[in-house]
Amino acid sequence: VLEPPPASAPATSVVLVTCRDERGLIHRLTGVLLRHGANIVSNDEFVDRASQRFFMRSEFEGREAGPAIVTEIAAALPPDATVRASGPAPPRIVLMATREHHCLGELLLRHMHGELGAIVLGVVSNRSNLRELTTRFDVPFHYVPHDNLDRVEHEAAVASVLEPLEPDYLVLAKYMRILSPAFVARYPARIINIHHSFLPAFIGADPYGQAFERGVKIIGATAHFVTRDLDQGPIIAQEVIPVDHSYRPEEMAQAGRDVEKIVLAKALRLVLEHRVFVIGNRTVVFE
Amino acid sequence: VLEPPPASAPATSVVLVTCRDERGLIHRLTGVLLRHGANIVSNDEFVDRASQRFFMRSEFEGREAGPAIVTEIAAALPPDATVRASGPAPPRIVLMATREHHCLGELLLRHMHGELGAIVLGVVSNRSNLRELTTRFDVPFHYVPHDNLDRVEHEAAVASVLEPLEPDYLVLAKYMRILSPAFVARYPARIINIHHSFLPAFIGADPYGQAFERGVKIIGATAHFVTRDLDQGPIIAQEVIPVDHSYRPEEMAQAGRDVEKIVLAKALRLVLEHRVFVIGNRTVVFE
Amino acid sequence: VLEPPPASAPATSVVLVTCRDERGLIHRLTGVLLRHGANIVSNDEFVDRASQRFFMRSEFEGREAGPAIVTEIAAALPPDATVRASGPAPPRIVLMATREHHCLGELLLRHMHGELGAIVLGVVSNRSNLRELTTRFDVPFHYVPHDNLDRVEHEAAVASVLEPLEPDYLVLAKYMRILSPAFVARYPARIINIHHSFLPAFIGADPYGQAFERGVKIIGATAHFVTRDLDQGPIIAQEVIPVDHSYRPEEMAQAGRDVEKIVLAKALRLVLEHRVFVIGNRTVVFE
Amino acid sequence: VLEPPPASAPATSVVLVTCRDERGLIHRLTGVLLRHGANIVSNDEFVDRASQRFFMRSEFEGREAGPAIVTEIAAALPPDATVRASGPAPPRIVLMATREHHCLGELLLRHMHGELGAIVLGVVSNRSNLRELTTRFDVPFHYVPHDNLDRVEHEAAVASVLEPLEPDYLVLAKYMRILSPAFVARYPARIINIHHSFLPAFIGADPYGQAFERGVKIIGATAHFVTRDLDQGPIIAQEVIPVDHSYRPEEMAQAGRDVEKIVLAKALRLVLEHRVFVIGNRTVVFE
Repeated sequence: VLEPPPASAPATSVVLVTCRDERGLIHRLTGVLLRHGANIVSNDEFVDRASQRFFMRSEFEGREAGPAIVTEIAAALPPDATVRASGPAPPRIVLMATREHHCLGELLLRHMHGELGAIVLGVVSNRSNLRELTTRFDVPFHYVPHDNLDRVEHEAAVASVLEPLEPDYLVLAKYMRILSPAFVARYPARIINIHHSFLPAFIGADPYGQAFERGVKIIGATAHFVTRDLDQGPIIAQEVIPVDHSYRPEEMAQAGRDVEKIVLAKALRLVLEHRVFVIGNRTVVFE
Repeated sequence: VLEPPPASAPATSVVLVTCRDERGLIHRLTGVLLRHGANIVSNDEFVDRASQRFFMRSEFEGREAGPAIVTEIAAALPPDATVRASGPAPPRIVLMATREHHCLGELLLRHMHGELGAIVLGVVSNRSNLRELTTRFDVPFHYVPHDNLDRVEHEAAVASVLEPLEPDYLVLAKYMRILSPAFVARYPARIINIHHSFLPAFIGADPYGQAFERGVKIIGATAHFVTRDLDQGPIIAQEVIPVDHSYRPEEMAQAGRDVEKIVLAKALRLVLEHRVFVIGNRTVVFE
Repeated sequence: VLEPPPASAPATSVVLVTCRDERGLIHRLTGVLLRHGANIVSNDEFVDRASQRFFMRSEFEGREAGPAIVTEIAAALPPDATVRASGPAPPRIVLMATREHHCLGELLLRHMHGELGAIVLGVVSNRSNLRELTTRFDVPFHYVPHDNLDRVEHEAAVASVLEPLEPDYLVLAKYMRILSPAFVARYPARIINIHHSFLPAFIGADPYGQAFERGVKIIGATAHFVTRDLDQGPIIAQEVIPVDHSYRPEEMAQAGRDVEKIVLAKALRLVLEHRVFVIGNRTVVFE
Repeated sequence: VLEPPPASAPATSVVLVTCRDERGLIHRLTGVLLRHGANIVSNDEFVDRASQRFFMRSEFEGREAGPAIVTEIAAALPPDATVRASGPAPPRIVLMATREHHCLGELLLRHMHGELGAIVLGVVSNRSNLRELTTRFDVPFHYVPHDNLDRVEHEAAVASVLEPLEPDYLVLAKYMRILSPAFVARYPARIINIHHSFLPAFIGADPYGQAFERGVKIIGATAHFVTRDLDQGPIIAQEVIPVDHSYRPEEMAQAGRDVEKIVLAKALRLVLEHRVFVIGNRTVVFE
């Protein structure tokens, strides 16, 4: 398994906190960090007025936010608080794909050069045609065919590959199988998907044919966490690209692929750098 | 009525042609223009493969594409052809609005400085609060209240204002009344509307509240021709603007207004410069 | 003088702090705010590693950051700290322009509808042709001609208009006179200018002619604070707009005007909302 | 050598014409195509008013614009005309790079999947470290070290590799050696370079350090043809990406790499699809 080369930037650690808002939270939290001698490099806070919830991301010098800091922070907060911290090693991810190469290739290329900030444990696919691309980058390829299997059986087969890998995140890089609620529930806010989506959005088969018929002037893509409602989970990042009347449906699809790979790479970077909170069906992203 | 100051660019005329595609069309059409001594400044053609239709926009020197050219071009084409030509005067437009000032103000400001390329015949509104803004720019304001009127009666009142003005185009600059199919049918491909629209699109009341709940990262706007299906007509222009979690619904609405006025101004410019064809529910736009 | 209508959002106050970085700053500062019962709505911090300086913007509920808070914050910080606070009234601004209307019109229109967040004290111009536009918006117009005056004399005449107005900021909305270092020194980081600037940048006369000759595909604009080096001051905001070979120099100029007014309006909003710090020749902008 | 898989779109051919403008050119040219039974799919014309030159790109059905068409077109035009036509095979290109992988990887990935529309003859580098990346894609890698060679000697070594390959275009995918005028003269308008360039542009060493010091809010990249003045040749494409105060110089460099690879890929597509004319130091690009 390829591991990224050591980063050149000074190593930093991150603590993420969310709880109901009350006065003095920032003061209390930075007090804990101060007592531990943590030198804060960057601190972001946000209070969501609709839900009256507080969010904070503290990035400080040092390779690890040790368990003592996390415990002490949790103790200083209201009982509903959740506290997450970056660990001593980069996050571990598995890439899942079906037939299309554009998103997978972009991520493998960034990974090869240590720009992904993750340990790529492998690629899982229900097709075999991306094996060649994957193995060119020395990444293990797990072919889990779905032929003659119902969804429960196929997901069990996928799960048996995933479990020993112990991934922190699954990245659906154009994985075209719908995941069951039971499967999704194992990875809450830990499955990232890329979705073609238009202005206005098109649902169902042949979205680019629909976009062509509607004569759209912009094509977009949305990266989001997967929840029970496959394409309705919290949005992490969105981008668009202009098109015009001269685009045939297949050219709209190519423009869509170009923007999909950029959006997925951006969303993954935000997640791996611990910049994303989920709040209901929305996200708070400290870019 | 304010008329735009004479433009500084050398005056040009435009002929627009559309018909079913066949070999030799460009050759034939440019032959007519050549015989009339027209010096072509810019020529755009497009063949839509899906419908096998041909589109051409010829811009040539001289203030007017005279009737002789139009007649001769029509005679040179298949019987299904439609030929349009710019006239000796700028297009005549009426602006319609309800309460919101941002689109109307943008257009009036451009008009005051002769940048709109149209004769603005007046503003029609079902509210009175934009009267002050309109009259600051010396443009006639027609208040046509809808109180105690049903839709048919109100549209009749609007029509009685519009008819003597003989507008070429109606510009719905945040006009919040739904137009009946009968009204729309009087101005085919001649009513331009601006529609907030999101990624994914939100329909119905309180779109910015919905966008907030969905946690979108991009807000957009769509300018389109009005057809029987109010917000489903052929799209002329679309733009987006990025937002993030820190936007409250009212801030999303402000961002939406900023992009709406830009898109509407752009779409109107394209129409007034005779750059837009309608084909089914799509447009061909020669920018 | 037009004053903006009362804003609908709950009134908030802002404190801006900058000093050399040291441990515990956020903790100390939020402690002061906590003791004063300030409920923080949004807090941004940044440490610039190159200069080892700390920046913080705290926005909290309540119409005013009273002098007591400012004094106590200053006392809690290293001696090199600077502390600024929003006052009980919106900032007071003067707009300065020469001939071109696009930036001035955009700002006056936003102001008319209470979207600018400032008290517009007047427009100062060395030409008279923008008087009509200005007075349409009921804003005082001060014509300060420069004919037969040298720069020192003209600036003295401008200063005699400005001084009784006591502006917080001067906004150069296409003011085409070069300001002397002595004049600029009276308004440190308080004069905002909009500068056409290209990729690559063009200096000197006829920038759009130069851009045309160079065949650029993008045109941009830069809003910045004015320092002794007129167009070299700290950048607040930049945007671009695509162009192509079909743009004549005058069309490039129109595209430039469209982007200039948007960038200037954005930069002014950032400044008026107390979101901009100057550090050397750079800015820290908490958007 | 990898050859791209057959494209799925119906094969088309392209003829490019430029000459001084005169009346009737489009009519005459389309007359030649009509006589040869060419079915025009897309026709673009442009008259550059500054130089009074005419440009036309005709794309028509059929795999090849045969020599007869080219000869007959040339005969129908003024003596200063130049006529180019697409050949029966895709263009042949050589990629040149030094140390940085981002542009090379993007092009190799697109090539692997048949999206480049070119035959990639090989990669030439004055360093060996990109050998691994190149050979993963089964593309020949030519290491031409410059140690102990002066520029003339090194260029002779490069030329001895290039000549037997007979490339149509050289793509400088972050090739960091300055090419001599004599070398450039062998490939007029056939060498494509990618240049980091900022708003305002920074020249000389450490451009990202300079951009950081200047506090820019946008970073850009420019793809251009190489002429005697290395970074001053005709611009093919430009794009930008927003940055802010939180970007360290190395993060600005990463943002620059992201935009560089996109711009270079776009410019190369435009050139390979025969969409680019050079006129003096500008380009006409029929997108």
